[in-house]
Amino acid sequence: MGTQILGLDPGLATLGFGAIAHTPALGGVPSCEPIDYGVIQTPAHTEVGDRLVTIYNDLHEVLTQLKPQLVAIEKFFFYRMGNTILVAQARGVVMLVLAQHHLPYVEFTPAQVKQALTGYGNAEKFEVQQAVARELNLDGIPKPDDAADALALAIAASFQL
Amino acid sequence: MGTQILGLDPGLATLGFGAIAHTPALGGVPSCEPIDYGVIQTPAHTEVGDRLVTIYNDLHEVLTQLKPQLVAIEKFFFYRMGNTILVAQARGVVMLVLAQHHLPYVEFTPAQVKQALTGYGNAEKFEVQQAVARELNLDGIPKPDDAADALALAIAASFQL
Repeated sequence: MGTQILGLDPGLATLGFGAIAHTPALGGVPSCEPIDYGVIQTPAHTEVGDRLVTIYNDLHEVLTQLKPQLVAIEKFFFYRMGNTILVAQARGVVMLVLAQHHLPYVEFTPAQVKQALTGYGNAEKFEVQQAVARELNLDGIPKPDDAADALALAIAASFQL
Repeated sequence: MGTQILGLDPGLATLGFGAIAHTPALGGVPSCEPIDYGVIQTPAHTEVGDRLVTIYNDLHEVLTQLKPQLVAIEKFFFYRMGNTILVAQARGVVMLVLAQHHLPYVEFTPAQVKQALTGYGNAEKFEVQQAVARELNLDGIPKPDDAADALALAIAASFQL
């Protein structure tokens, strides 16, 4: 019996998602396997409301298909001042959809994810991506970056199980 | 033929709404009549996601009942730093619901609303509320404050018609 964990990296233009199956140790070594990963994208220069509808519909579709038991989502701060409001509005739609699916979630800061995957809170993006590939036994680094970030969130959550 | 305008003052704890019917001048004086106003409230100390679901469901209900043709919504800035992210997340759900209803909207800053209703961008809250009561021929100031703010937004939008 494993746990399906979905990582989510919210944004208005690109929302990364990455689902893994976590198998507990049971006398052996705990393992994580990738299930699916990708991005929900909304076109620039279109109405904010329409972009939020796309996120709402596509995320419902992702949750219906992947049926995660736990979600790991990036904790939100003011570190991207220019588009903070737009990203927070998109995150509000994500939190709405998670609640509509009655899904429990855990939040991690970027530094917490880096610490969990590399042992170092200031690790470079590439080091985190390499750790994602290693943990999931992938030959290469998952693309695009937002999907890799989402998988990193899911892996960080699996370490707490 | 008039226009039904719904003003919305988004928040996570309290979302004010106020609907008016605007009748154009046609040789006489343009007029605004109140249709309905009130607030959508979500209990503090409950899950953010559940509160967003309440806003989502209740706002759908308000739009279905009041059938506005135009929405006037407060433009969002960083002036409430402490809960900016929470308010922005709630506003994301509001923008989602408006788009799901294919509703056009106009945005006003608080200063623009004050300017439109009192002729003075730094007017006191009470002066704006008095102007709302006067424009709508109400005996008293509409309560609570968030509903009065929403009516003020709708009236500001009516001045542009």
